[in-house]
Amino acid sequence: MKRTLTTQINKEIGKEVTLFGWIHKLRKMGGISFLVLRDRNGLAQAVIDGGEENDKLKELTTETVVKITGKVVKEERAPHGAELHDCKIEIISPVKEDISIAINKKEMNVNIDTLLDNRPITLRNPKQRAIFEVQSAITDEFRKFLEKRDFTEINTPKIVSSGLETGGAEMFTIDYFKKKAYLSQSPQMYKQIMVGVYERVFETAYIYRAEKHNTSRHINEYVSLDLEMGFIDSYEEIMDLEAEFLGGLLKKLEENYSEEFGMLSSEIPVIKKGIPRMKLSEAQEILEKEYGEKCVGEPDLEPKHEKQICEYTAKQLGSEFVFITHYPSKKRPFYTMDDPKIPKETLSFDLLFRGLEITTGGQRIHLYEEYLEKMKSRGMNTKDFEDYLSVFKYGMPPHGGLAIGLERITARLLNLDNIREASLFPRDINRLRP
Amino acid sequence: MKRTLTTQINKEIGKEVTLFGWIHKLRKMGGISFLVLRDRNGLAQAVIDGGEENDKLKELTTETVVKITGKVVKEERAPHGAELHDCKIEIISPVKEDISIAINKKEMNVNIDTLLDNRPITLRNPKQRAIFEVQSAITDEFRKFLEKRDFTEINTPKIVSSGLETGGAEMFTIDYFKKKAYLSQSPQMYKQIMVGVYERVFETAYIYRAEKHNTSRHINEYVSLDLEMGFIDSYEEIMDLEAEFLGGLLKKLEENYSEEFGMLSSEIPVIKKGIPRMKLSEAQEILEKEYGEKCVGEPDLEPKHEKQICEYTAKQLGSEFVFITHYPSKKRPFYTMDDPKIPKETLSFDLLFRGLEITTGGQRIHLYEEYLEKMKSRGMNTKDFEDYLSVFKYGMPPHGGLAIGLERITARLLNLDNIREASLFPRDINRLRP
Repeated sequence: MKRTLTTQINKEIGKEVTLFGWIHKLRKMGGISFLVLRDRNGLAQAVIDGGEENDKLKELTTETVVKITGKVVKEERAPHGAELHDCKIEIISPVKEDISIAINKKEMNVNIDTLLDNRPITLRNPKQRAIFEVQSAITDEFRKFLEKRDFTEINTPKIVSSGLETGGAEMFTIDYFKKKAYLSQSPQMYKQIMVGVYERVFETAYIYRAEKHNTSRHINEYVSLDLEMGFIDSYEEIMDLEAEFLGGLLKKLEENYSEEFGMLSSEIPVIKKGIPRMKLSEAQEILEKEYGEKCVGEPDLEPKHEKQICEYTAKQLGSEFVFITHYPSKKRPFYTMDDPKIPKETLSFDLLFRGLEITTGGQRIHLYEEYLEKMKSRGMNTKDFEDYLSVFKYGMPPHGGLAIGLERITARLLNLDNIREASLFPRDINRLRP
Repeated sequence: MKRTLTTQINKEIGKEVTLFGWIHKLRKMGGISFLVLRDRNGLAQAVIDGGEENDKLKELTTETVVKITGKVVKEERAPHGAELHDCKIEIISPVKEDISIAINKKEMNVNIDTLLDNRPITLRNPKQRAIFEVQSAITDEFRKFLEKRDFTEINTPKIVSSGLETGGAEMFTIDYFKKKAYLSQSPQMYKQIMVGVYERVFETAYIYRAEKHNTSRHINEYVSLDLEMGFIDSYEEIMDLEAEFLGGLLKKLEENYSEEFGMLSSEIPVIKKGIPRMKLSEAQEILEKEYGEKCVGEPDLEPKHEKQICEYTAKQLGSEFVFITHYPSKKRPFYTMDDPKIPKETLSFDLLFRGLEITTGGQRIHLYEEYLEKMKSRGMNTKDFEDYLSVFKYGMPPHGGLAIGLERITARLLNLDNIREASLFPRDINRLRP
């Protein structure tokens, strides 16, 4: 007995088919019942009119797992233009407890805590499913885009003996066989090391930040889409690469995920004439001129400014994405390359999208002496970085890279208010379950 | 000025090209020098005969990053059948310290500790690079194979509040904002939850085991290729799926990675007539009969037995892979489905390959009462598993899955003695760096 998927029934008009899935909706009207079945691909309607099968439905509730065999009949008003008649129903797994959340409704009308506390069940809601279908498409496109360009996938350790800069601040500590270890806050050092091996590398993996921020923009375990590439001429090449990736991604989403975007009432962004690039100082001048914000000379943009500058570029420059470059040296990690032409500014960038920073990137220092000098000027102990620094003794090309926050780009693409909605099982300062 | 890759020079005979890369080898013979350049794709030779350019080479050592411009001349004995003449060399990054390890030799002749202690440099050795090229191909094929079959990629948390069975034994503990948390030892519970959402899911991510075993088969942080699928008829379907995946993987390796296998002196396995399947008890009878091992009735195979049974199936049944099924219930986790026809045995399997277990899988319990019963019989507290158990109250289909250890399959495919050689930066009880 072959299984037919819900989305395929319209290819079987007049035939008997067998579907498997969950009872998504059940409407009993006297002697006739309308059952909507949900499987991995979508929904299909079955009409049960009278008799023994209808009696069976009396005890059934939504989410019961069933097998339905029936004849496919054309019906324009049903999903996929067809429905099942003359059905036989077999119960595979019963429901043991009434569900208090309307997971089969378009809007579940629950607050974020209820949504997340009941994740194992709320994720079955079609809108929630759509979020993570889109998310998996983003990761998939990131990998495929890079593979085509000779990047090699790497797996770098998440249990590390020291941090990037501060030796453990904002890192979670682990009891590692009685020794103290940390959860990696970034694959930065490892991906640079791997540029010495493969030139071009990427990783799509969790990283961890022990930040106490409890905002709609922060989670403590998140997926970082990381890349690093050698033999670049300029940090601009990294932005070129990201712009090309995003162009391809938006095209793919347009072609395959318009239904998901529709469900989430979000528009797939259009980049009309490329992604604009401006120095932080230029952005600040715009903010002062257009919004009266007195921020010129500040080392970074505030969340409010990120929203304003995105609004500005969307209206004036035709892009909801904007690269902000040349953050001051003191605000960027030690490995960031300074701009030789502009003192105290770096060859670094953030990508802002719909008001949120979704990427940080830039060119890195590649000469050993420059590392020693920069670290000395910051009072850092080079002994703590011996493994990392060793590669720069043995020839490293000019290189740079970036990291995209997967949950952030997902949330902004789909207009989710809270980044937690873009994580299957988010972790924050108060949330360790489910 | 366009960059040409080493492997492409034979398409540019007679033309001037520019290569970038590392000096892999340098042979100075009087007035003439032979320089082998390494880039992300391979090697190319440049001939420098006399003059200023030859003088430059005097101060250079291997691993220096250079740009070489020269004319491509046909030369059958050189890599890719061509070499560069009339070269101009420009130093991009110098080498600061002599390298004590011969990373440009086929055999570095270092012990495992030296190899791993100096990973940032030893990974540049072509054999080491080959290992992780193959590894990335395995992960890539796993994902592509599953995507074609409607599986959805998921990211499940690695910071968890409790363990699978033992409430924390063999798990690393994390200080999570003054609360105790653990590093996940398996995505098992989450991937089952997600079967309720997408039916078919996969994840390729690190998991963590705080095992103190310091053997050539164990590392404490490893990549688990996980899948879980709903609406199965039998646990045999999971084995069918893995056999099909492996068939496709071996074909891909044969087509694209024979050079890498050659470098590592390993043969790509051939599966002649499918992967044999036998019950644990059947395997034990073979071991007793063929090898005189008194193991009938034991709950598991010893490492020696795993080697013997693989040797046997390779010789007698034409497969270096073998599925061992029906491990006793007491040796398998609580969520494993018992065989209704064979008391105290489970619908579970291990896949052994070249003497090592590389996969564990099976069918899971899908009915709520059966979980309660099984957990009660084991003296487990169901309160500790409330989030997980909740999904079984709301309709779960028959399902099963498996987990492949990425480093283990890589190591056995490439005949690496120690699993650590199949991890870029392995973690074990004594190793937290690099």
